[in-house]
Amino acid sequence: MDLKSVFQPRTLCVIGVSQYNPLSPGTVIYQKNLHEMEVEVFGVNPRGGTLDGREIYKSISDVPKDIDLAVICVHAEAVNEVLEECGEVGVKGVVVVSGGFAEIGGEGIERQNQLVKIAKKYDMVVIGPNCVGVYSPPYVDTFFLPSERLVTPPPGNVAVISQSGGILVDQFFSKYTERKIGVSVAVSTGNKAIVDENVLLEYFKNDPRTKLIAVYLEGFREKEGTLFLRRAMECFERKKPVLVFMAGKSDYGKQATASHTGSVMAAYNVASAAFRQWGVIEAEDEYEVITFSKVLSFNLPSIKNGNIAVLTISGGHGVLCADLCVQYGLKLVEFTEEEQEEMRMLLNPSAAPIASLKNPIDLTGSLTDSDVEKVAEYLMRNEKVEATILLMLPYPPTISMQLGRRTANIVRKYRKPVVAYVPWVQKYQMIVEGFELNGVPVAHTVEEAVQMIKALKLKGEAEMRINRSLG
Amino acid sequence: MDLKSVFQPRTLCVIGVSQYNPLSPGTVIYQKNLHEMEVEVFGVNPRGGTLDGREIYKSISDVPKDIDLAVICVHAEAVNEVLEECGEVGVKGVVVVSGGFAEIGGEGIERQNQLVKIAKKYDMVVIGPNCVGVYSPPYVDTFFLPSERLVTPPPGNVAVISQSGGILVDQFFSKYTERKIGVSVAVSTGNKAIVDENVLLEYFKNDPRTKLIAVYLEGFREKEGTLFLRRAMECFERKKPVLVFMAGKSDYGKQATASHTGSVMAAYNVASAAFRQWGVIEAEDEYEVITFSKVLSFNLPSIKNGNIAVLTISGGHGVLCADLCVQYGLKLVEFTEEEQEEMRMLLNPSAAPIASLKNPIDLTGSLTDSDVEKVAEYLMRNEKVEATILLMLPYPPTISMQLGRRTANIVRKYRKPVVAYVPWVQKYQMIVEGFELNGVPVAHTVEEAVQMIKALKLKGEAEMRINRSLG
Repeated sequence: MDLKSVFQPRTLCVIGVSQYNPLSPGTVIYQKNLHEMEVEVFGVNPRGGTLDGREIYKSISDVPKDIDLAVICVHAEAVNEVLEECGEVGVKGVVVVSGGFAEIGGEGIERQNQLVKIAKKYDMVVIGPNCVGVYSPPYVDTFFLPSERLVTPPPGNVAVISQSGGILVDQFFSKYTERKIGVSVAVSTGNKAIVDENVLLEYFKNDPRTKLIAVYLEGFREKEGTLFLRRAMECFERKKPVLVFMAGKSDYGKQATASHTGSVMAAYNVASAAFRQWGVIEAEDEYEVITFSKVLSFNLPSIKNGNIAVLTISGGHGVLCADLCVQYGLKLVEFTEEEQEEMRMLLNPSAAPIASLKNPIDLTGSLTDSDVEKVAEYLMRNEKVEATILLMLPYPPTISMQLGRRTANIVRKYRKPVVAYVPWVQKYQMIVEGFELNGVPVAHTVEEAVQMIKALKLKGEAEMRINRSLG
Repeated sequence: MDLKSVFQPRTLCVIGVSQYNPLSPGTVIYQKNLHEMEVEVFGVNPRGGTLDGREIYKSISDVPKDIDLAVICVHAEAVNEVLEECGEVGVKGVVVVSGGFAEIGGEGIERQNQLVKIAKKYDMVVIGPNCVGVYSPPYVDTFFLPSERLVTPPPGNVAVISQSGGILVDQFFSKYTERKIGVSVAVSTGNKAIVDENVLLEYFKNDPRTKLIAVYLEGFREKEGTLFLRRAMECFERKKPVLVFMAGKSDYGKQATASHTGSVMAAYNVASAAFRQWGVIEAEDEYEVITFSKVLSFNLPSIKNGNIAVLTISGGHGVLCADLCVQYGLKLVEFTEEEQEEMRMLLNPSAAPIASLKNPIDLTGSLTDSDVEKVAEYLMRNEKVEATILLMLPYPPTISMQLGRRTANIVRKYRKPVVAYVPWVQKYQMIVEGFELNGVPVAHTVEEAVQMIKALKLKGEAEMRINRSLG
């Protein structure tokens, strides 16, 4: 199936624009693409008229250009007729935004079967029905929520697939934007009449813009699950991890799923174990979705055993982090007396006598940027340390706003993962950017930092499993 | 012990200001109080000079006014001599910022014993040594980090006590500020030579500004723990819950604590069970500290059984929330067919046919403000529902920025707790404020919203236990 016409169309036809209602989905999509995206846009409404000073065509057959992608935003009853017209004029891809199909049961199921038949007859790729559609910057955006409401993440290397439009625009778009995680393509799969997760994984496997695939799942239909595992493994072999966030794990959750997407998570434990076996990385909660997305999008090396060092400015943060390491199955490297003395000799004379060089390493509020640089470099060279967490509280005035860039410039010379905790405060954005633009992802809680290391450990475990299964 | 001289001093003397180093702790404290706080400020340095055009006195005995509070920021070796002078001129309260006491062992222990002796001789209240001190708006602020570095929460009704200065300025101050949680008084206890948690609880019990007491603990010294339980219960009886966040729970954590505050959490499970028994509310992680602080500072009624309703705009968020309710030991109320139809009749004609009125109640993206108002009011009147979670995603343009205020104005008429999830996005601040200024606390993840309900359930359990033990 050729999804390029959907994700990188040169021409887009929006069927169901309204001259009068600026908030109708068709009109929102029309104007968004016309003014914000690169695709060439045409609008269709049987009554004709004009929109933004441009002609509204009465039918897609009146549009003067070949159409790569059509978006259908008409009442459910009219969708199949319009789809047939799309097929006749040779449209390659279609997004059906309209609801009123399998999700309502009864006649909706029949309507969806008909839709599938037409799509197959003309060999058209269909996303939906009953979906928010596709966001693929800078080409096209069929998300029918107005730009002043939606929060849209920057372009980047994460492909997102979601069974829920709400989760996609909120848990992914809003939070990715907040954390500056960039998206290559985002797809709301809706009823998955034609295009499901497996079709999409097949595409993203070969998409040069995509380095990580994040999937929100409420369950699979028959046989979908096993194919998903195979596809995910193929992606992983091409160095594109598949990150899964599941909901509908509990009894209450399953009931809620039944009235939402209608899919059912058979037995969560079974699914979870299968994912792990096939190299899929599972995020267990809302926070891990974001922290895992961030750290995996940075393409840091994975780790095998989880032996880490923690470098802190605040003893209390060190204690919190130590507790969390235990909770997340990580180990704190034990430094010998000799190693501790080597580190102490790197410190400035105020910090040296009061710093604790055990692990967590507590440099205290008397530290300077240089102390962090030097101890971080020491840890990069220490063979026992697989990864380092920097707990960087920039409150003491001896720390400069250059801390992030300075430290990142040191550690980037070594192929060893480092993540940093920096408080989520506007005035510290320069430190955050200094770290992140130079390859060190930043967490905004201590737990997030630990989760980032967990993701690298899960990635390492997946690599080992897959290498073994490839023999 | 009269702590009023420390928390609401009329006069402050900073001993150890520097004419030349604007970043020295004494100078930072001097200038902060002079320009930002209400207290009248005097500076002392044996060399004299001027600071901000005002005289620096050579000794506290030269200061022309009676001093309520002195802050000592001199080298450890000089502290006790200065403290003696403070006693001689009748200073009532002292904050000793300087380190170099019991925390360094050896001579430091002797020095601290001497400090205690002097304090007792003159009946002075001493905070510290080795601490960040006291923040008590609008009166006084001895936190020696410059204002351009520190993040300071607004005045409010939460008293904070912390064994770690780093945790206080970061996990409490930065995050409280982000979430607009206000502070009555914050105290970094340091080495607790004189003033410990128990002395502070005794004070906050009677402090009219304080409605909730949040405590960060790495452990207790001998006999401190049992007294703490008693004091906490007394606070709870006066409707001031004590919220505890413990660190040093694990083996790694305990090791880290040993080199930090030197205190040891004997057996975490034992402490945790004792807290619960005595009505102390325990936050289990960084997130719960913030969500519990927020919801408990709103003074919502507690709940007994955890029977809740979830109202959502996004099916996916409903599923996530349902899973989390199970995880947090809450129950989703089951609505009868009749109740579901009653709610359906309240909805606008677009939402009515597609909404799911089971629990979670999914009003779908076709909802309007009125639908939320009406269904929320229905839930307030339904006797099975103890508390309601509103999952409010403001992306559909049919939702207005008035949603928060409108809904809060309805639910505030009933004595039933409601919490809302609203994405943490600048443009939705009007909705967030509409909720919060009218009594509905807002969470920024679905899990945070569920945690808020958990806090109200823990508060309900504490009330039952304490009533029984008084009974």
